[in-house]
Amino acid sequence: MAENKYISSLQNPLVKKALTLKEKSRERKKTGCFVLEGVRELQLAIKGNYELETVFFYADIISKEEVLGLLGQEIGHEVLIEISKDIYQKLAYRETTEGVLAIAKSKSHSLEAMEFSTKNPLVLIAEAPEKPGNIGAILRTADAANLDAVIIANPKGDLYNPNIIRSSVGCVFTNQIGVGSTTEVIKFLKDKDIAIYCAALTASEKYTSVKFNEASAIVVGTEATGLSPEWLENSTKNIIIPMEGEIDSMNVSVSAAIVIFEAKRQRESQ
Amino acid sequence: MAENKYISSLQNPLVKKALTLKEKSRERKKTGCFVLEGVRELQLAIKGNYELETVFFYADIISKEEVLGLLGQEIGHEVLIEISKDIYQKLAYRETTEGVLAIAKSKSHSLEAMEFSTKNPLVLIAEAPEKPGNIGAILRTADAANLDAVIIANPKGDLYNPNIIRSSVGCVFTNQIGVGSTTEVIKFLKDKDIAIYCAALTASEKYTSVKFNEASAIVVGTEATGLSPEWLENSTKNIIIPMEGEIDSMNVSVSAAIVIFEAKRQRESQ
Repeated sequence: MAENKYISSLQNPLVKKALTLKEKSRERKKTGCFVLEGVRELQLAIKGNYELETVFFYADIISKEEVLGLLGQEIGHEVLIEISKDIYQKLAYRETTEGVLAIAKSKSHSLEAMEFSTKNPLVLIAEAPEKPGNIGAILRTADAANLDAVIIANPKGDLYNPNIIRSSVGCVFTNQIGVGSTTEVIKFLKDKDIAIYCAALTASEKYTSVKFNEASAIVVGTEATGLSPEWLENSTKNIIIPMEGEIDSMNVSVSAAIVIFEAKRQRESQ
Repeated sequence: MAENKYISSLQNPLVKKALTLKEKSRERKKTGCFVLEGVRELQLAIKGNYELETVFFYADIISKEEVLGLLGQEIGHEVLIEISKDIYQKLAYRETTEGVLAIAKSKSHSLEAMEFSTKNPLVLIAEAPEKPGNIGAILRTADAANLDAVIIANPKGDLYNPNIIRSSVGCVFTNQIGVGSTTEVIKFLKDKDIAIYCAALTASEKYTSVKFNEASAIVVGTEATGLSPEWLENSTKNIIIPMEGEIDSMNVSVSAAIVIFEAKRQRESQ
């Protein structure tokens, strides 16, 4: 049986690594690692086949046995490290405190690696989304709708931002996610014969009159500037959610959800 | 013609009042006033018939003529005060800076005062919503869907929190909003013969199989605890958005939007 590992020094290299990964996107990209926190997030990361490098736990909140139970047989002792209260307080960033954090390895999210288990996948594309909270909400919706994939076109940051992980409540691990430039994503969709439906305030076709039964990608842009011309020029149809009030846009995660669930409704009532 | 008023002292009572109103819910409740910022917010507040007590502008960003143009003839000079850069920087709280803020009078939001211009209103009820960002997104969706009203049951704070005003992009002024206890709101709905559809994870009826053509209230609870038993016991039907992924809830503003726009779709395809 392996002996217990215990860290109580803020100077420990693993602790320093976790702190830097939490704060710096550049460091996450360079090392291909990120930090996650919380029981559900850990469970979903394991379910999503993420490789855990190190799991930190603070024994006053969660026992070693409980953490081992979360990790399951195939992961085991060797990655497990108990940390002191000081270290835990320094590493933890969430409001609800569950006593467990991990360093995990990122996935590549290349478009080439994406696979669909159906001939008519339903995919959401978000171009250049900025707010972690919106990206998180989109990933939650995508998980709930069991979308075949989410693709981020022209990303503004990396997926493993702690605020994205938190606001997605771990759905960043459960969705198939692809990342690429807008040009690459459009080529990918055309190669796969996936129809492109761009949400645009200038569109004239109501989202409810489009038939989403074939392979479909729903594409949403930013609230400030909408989609780039490249999307609108390459779309199968530009669609609109009619707005009848004083303002001209809804939250981007809300708009995406309305169109996604209309597509779901149509597919289920076939 | 009225002379120009100008404030450059942080000790000025009006400046102090605005600062306190921005920060303290208790002060907003006590005085019946609140602070708003930004051109669109000011326009929507005027459109929503909010009474402006004082309008502050910083002349390096927006001219007196521009502000008067926003205010329109019926409001005019007497409420207008130019402020120095120091004061403006102290009062402004938004990322985008538009040079204009106002102290306005709150509305009462009593259920008794609510009026519907149709026999089959569509209303959204949110019970005890906590995050200003979620409340703001709900109000944006309600404006876009042109709902007949939004009702906050068992509110956790006041509507005029600067973060609600900001995240609603001013839709807190464009919606008819009622506030009351859950008991009061249920009585109000029953008195008006409005069917109550409660979104609940324990429900068995899919939201798409409900007919929303008659007078309907869609009721959503918090993400953490859902709706209180009182709602579920008094509902016409408890409805569910089926979730097919790993998680069991979506963002509350997203769930609300999905059901609202399904109701809209049904009503338009009648």
